[in-house]
Amino acid sequence: MAEKKLVEAITSMEEDFAKWYTDVVKKAELIDYSNVKGCMVIKPAGYAIWENIQKELDRRFKETGVENVYMPMFIPESLLQKEKDHVEGFAPEAAWVTYGGSEPLQERMCVRPTSETLFCDFYAGDIHSYRDLPRLYNQWCSVVRWEKTTRPFLRSREFLWQEGHTAHATAEDAEERTKQMLNVYADFCEEVLAIPVVRGQKTEKEKFAGAEATYTIEALMHDGQALQSGTSHNFGDGFAKAFDIQFTDKDNSLKYVYQTSWGMSTRIIGAIIMVHGDNSGLKLPPRIAPCQVAVIPIQQKKEGVLEAAAGIRDALKESGLQAKLDDADKSPGWKFSEQEMRGIPLRVEIGPKDLEDGNCVLVRRDTREKVTVPISEAGAKAKELLETIQKEMLERAKEHLEEHTYEATEYTEFQKTIEEKPGFVKAMWCGDRACEDKIKEETGATSRCMPFEQKRLSESCICCGKPAKALVYWGRAY
Amino acid sequence: MAEKKLVEAITSMEEDFAKWYTDVVKKAELIDYSNVKGCMVIKPAGYAIWENIQKELDRRFKETGVENVYMPMFIPESLLQKEKDHVEGFAPEAAWVTYGGSEPLQERMCVRPTSETLFCDFYAGDIHSYRDLPRLYNQWCSVVRWEKTTRPFLRSREFLWQEGHTAHATAEDAEERTKQMLNVYADFCEEVLAIPVVRGQKTEKEKFAGAEATYTIEALMHDGQALQSGTSHNFGDGFAKAFDIQFTDKDNSLKYVYQTSWGMSTRIIGAIIMVHGDNSGLKLPPRIAPCQVAVIPIQQKKEGVLEAAAGIRDALKESGLQAKLDDADKSPGWKFSEQEMRGIPLRVEIGPKDLEDGNCVLVRRDTREKVTVPISEAGAKAKELLETIQKEMLERAKEHLEEHTYEATEYTEFQKTIEEKPGFVKAMWCGDRACEDKIKEETGATSRCMPFEQKRLSESCICCGKPAKALVYWGRAY
Repeated sequence: MAEKKLVEAITSMEEDFAKWYTDVVKKAELIDYSNVKGCMVIKPAGYAIWENIQKELDRRFKETGVENVYMPMFIPESLLQKEKDHVEGFAPEAAWVTYGGSEPLQERMCVRPTSETLFCDFYAGDIHSYRDLPRLYNQWCSVVRWEKTTRPFLRSREFLWQEGHTAHATAEDAEERTKQMLNVYADFCEEVLAIPVVRGQKTEKEKFAGAEATYTIEALMHDGQALQSGTSHNFGDGFAKAFDIQFTDKDNSLKYVYQTSWGMSTRIIGAIIMVHGDNSGLKLPPRIAPCQVAVIPIQQKKEGVLEAAAGIRDALKESGLQAKLDDADKSPGWKFSEQEMRGIPLRVEIGPKDLEDGNCVLVRRDTREKVTVPISEAGAKAKELLETIQKEMLERAKEHLEEHTYEATEYTEFQKTIEEKPGFVKAMWCGDRACEDKIKEETGATSRCMPFEQKRLSESCICCGKPAKALVYWGRAY
Repeated sequence: MAEKKLVEAITSMEEDFAKWYTDVVKKAELIDYSNVKGCMVIKPAGYAIWENIQKELDRRFKETGVENVYMPMFIPESLLQKEKDHVEGFAPEAAWVTYGGSEPLQERMCVRPTSETLFCDFYAGDIHSYRDLPRLYNQWCSVVRWEKTTRPFLRSREFLWQEGHTAHATAEDAEERTKQMLNVYADFCEEVLAIPVVRGQKTEKEKFAGAEATYTIEALMHDGQALQSGTSHNFGDGFAKAFDIQFTDKDNSLKYVYQTSWGMSTRIIGAIIMVHGDNSGLKLPPRIAPCQVAVIPIQQKKEGVLEAAAGIRDALKESGLQAKLDDADKSPGWKFSEQEMRGIPLRVEIGPKDLEDGNCVLVRRDTREKVTVPISEAGAKAKELLETIQKEMLERAKEHLEEHTYEATEYTEFQKTIEEKPGFVKAMWCGDRACEDKIKEETGATSRCMPFEQKRLSESCICCGKPAKALVYWGRAY
C-alpha cells in the first residue's frame, strides 16, 4: 500500500467537518457500523479509551463514597408511567419487548433508556430509616433510545454510560450531591481529557424529564459547535412522591427522600475526537491514551536496531508508561501515519544512524516537535514530554474556547455572530420558553446553559427586550 | 435488635439447602429481588465481588492477547437464523423487541442471549487476510434468556457475563484456544475462588447450540449437586460457512476461519456461596473478598479503643490489605454476626483489656480459630493468616470433591449412589444419547462431562451394557 494512503483516506476538517469526524472514527478503528441499524460496534481501540474513562471516573466516584450496583435492563410499562414528566420524555423513544420466547408478555417492557424508575422502585423497598441514607449508587451499563438519525458515539440507539442515582434525607444534601458530581465530571474533563467546559444550569426547556434542576457541562468542539458532555439532575422529592419512597427520620416522622441522578456516556469520546483531532487523525491526551508511546524502528532489519527499539520500549514501561514497539513488516512512514491516525501522543524513532550516536528521536503528536536525546534518557524525557503535551493540549483547548466565546446585546448582532462565528454566544434572557423557541427557529442555536458564573451584559432579553433574568450561553449543538 | 437475629434469620443448610442459599444471598445483601419478574438487583456487596472477578479474569484474558470490544445488544431475527442449530437452541428463550417508540419494527430483534451471530456478522466484514488473524475479542455485558423458573445468580432472565469470540486461520489454532481459555477459567477458579473443578468435554446432547465441541469446568456444591461453572466452545468452521467469513491465506487461496467462544457469568458467585458457605452465612476466599479484614472494637467508647482500632485498620491497609473499621453504634456481637454473614475472611477484635496488654485478637472466618498477637504485628499476621485461609479453603473444597466423587460399574449401584450419596458418579458410557436420556429420567442425573483424564472403569456402558466409549462424570446439577 502507498505510504500516504491512510492519511489521504480522511477528508480534511476544513472541507467537511462532519465527514472528517466519521472518517477519523473509522480510520482510527474506534468504531465500525453494524448491521443492527443505529447501533455501533466499538472496536478495541475505541473500547480501550472507554475502559480508561471508566477506570478514572469510577475511582473518582468511589472517593466520594459511591458504590456500584446493577439493576435489570427492562422496565415494565406501568413502572415507567409512574412519574408523568419522565414517561412523556422517554416513552416516545423506547424500544419495547413484547414477547418472551413464543409467548406474548402480559405487560410489555422497554429496554431502559435510563433507570430512574428502576432505582426508585428499588429504593421504595430498601430505604426505611434515616440510617439508610444517603444511598449513593451507580451502575455501568448500556441504554437504548430509539433515535431516528444516528452518528458514531454522538447519537446511537444503544450507548454505554454510567448512571448514578442517590437518595438523601434533605433537599440540601441532594443539591450538594448534584453539584458535587457535576464538578467530578468537569474536573475529569479538564484534568484527564484536557477538555475545558462551561458549568451551568439547563433552562426549563432543556432540563431532564422529571428533574427539578439539571446541571450540565458544555464543551466546544473544534468546529464551534457545543457538545453537552455530562449532566447531573436534582429531582427534589418528585420521584419519591411518585414512587412512595419514605423514611423514618430522627424525629420519628415519616419523610420523603430527595434524589439525584447523573450520567456520562461514550458520547464523551466524540468530544475527545472533535476537540483535539486534526487532519492527520486522532490526538489523544496522554492521560487517557491506551498507548502513550509508540516506538518505531527505522531500517529495522539493520543489526541492533530492533533490539535497541525493544530496549527503549522496556525502559518506557519501567518508567510506568504505556508503550508498544511497532515491529510490523511495514515502512516507517506507514507506521508514522498509523501512529498519528490513532492519536498516540508520542513516538520514538530509532535507526542505525541514531544507534551509532547512542541517540533516539522523540516526536510529539500534538505539535510534531522533534527532540533528540540519548537512549538512556528516553524514559525520563518521554515522561516529561507527555506531561507537557497534556498541559498544552488543555491550554490550546482553553484558548479555542475563549476565542470562540462571544457576547451579544442586540438581536441582529446575536444572529450574525451565531451565523458567522461558530462558538458560544453569551446573551441575556428573560426566562421565557417562547424566546428560546424563537432563537432556535431563527438561528439554530439552543440555550446550552445558564453559567454558574453569572454576569449582567445588559438589562433586557436578547430576543424580546423584556427585563433579563439570566445570562445564557447559546450555541448550535450536537 | 437482638444480637442473634441476623444468624437466626437464615435456615440451616442441613434442613433446607435451597432455602439456606436464598437466605444467605439476601442476608449477606448480595442481591434483592426486583419487580421485573425473573430479574435481580445486584447490590453493592454482590457487585463488588463481580468487580473483583472481572478485574482478575480480564487481566488473565489480556495476558493471552485478548482485546475487549462492544457489540450491539440486539440481534435482528434474520441474523439469529443464519446458523440452524444455534437458532433452535436460543430462539425459544429469546426476548423480542417489536416496537421502536410507537412504530412497529420492520424486522423484530431479540435481546442477545449470546453474541455469536453478531461477532460473526462483524468478522465477515472485518477479516480479509491471514494477517488479520487471529482475532481475539471479548466483551463484558449482560444477556437475556427467558427462563421460566429463576434463582438468584444461578438462573435469571438477565445475567452479567463475559463472552470471548475468536477467529483463527486453522482448526488447530481454534482447538488450542478453546482449551487455553478453559484452563484460564479452571486456574482462576482454583487459584482465586478456591473452587476445584473437573475439566472435560460435554456430550453431544449437552454441548452448545452450534458448536463442534464444548469444554466445561464442573464444580461440586456443598449439597453434592454439580454446577457448570464456565464453558469454552470450538465451532470449527460451521459458523464461518453460515456467515461467509473467509480470508486470503498465505498461499493466496480463500479459506474459512475457525472460531471459538467462551464465557463465565455471575453464576460463579452462586458457586462461591454454595462451595464455601456455612450456617453463619457467606465465606469469601481472601483473594476475591472486597473486604478482607473487619476491625471490630470492643467497648468502643472506652478511652483509646477506637483510636487503636483505627490504627490497626491503617496498618492493615499499609500491608496492602482491604480492611475496614466497623465503628457503628451496635454491639460487638452484632458486628461479629454481620462480618460472618458477609463472609469477611478475617476479623480483628480489640478491647480495653487487649489494649492494656498491647495485643489484639485475630479470628478466622473459616475455622473460627483465634490468635492473640501484639498490635504492632497485626498487619504481618493478618497477611499470613489470609494466605493460610485461601490455601485451606481450597484444600477443604478439594477434600469435599474427592469424598463426594464415586465410581459405579453396575446400573443398580449407580442408581443407588445417585440417590443416596449426592456428588459425582464416574461411570462408563456407550456414547448414545438414549442412555443419557434414560439416566436423566430414572435418576435425575445428567452427564456433566467426559473428563480429560480418562480411565476405563469397565468395558461396558453403565446403562445399556454395550461397549463403553468414554468415562463420564454424572450428577444432579443446578
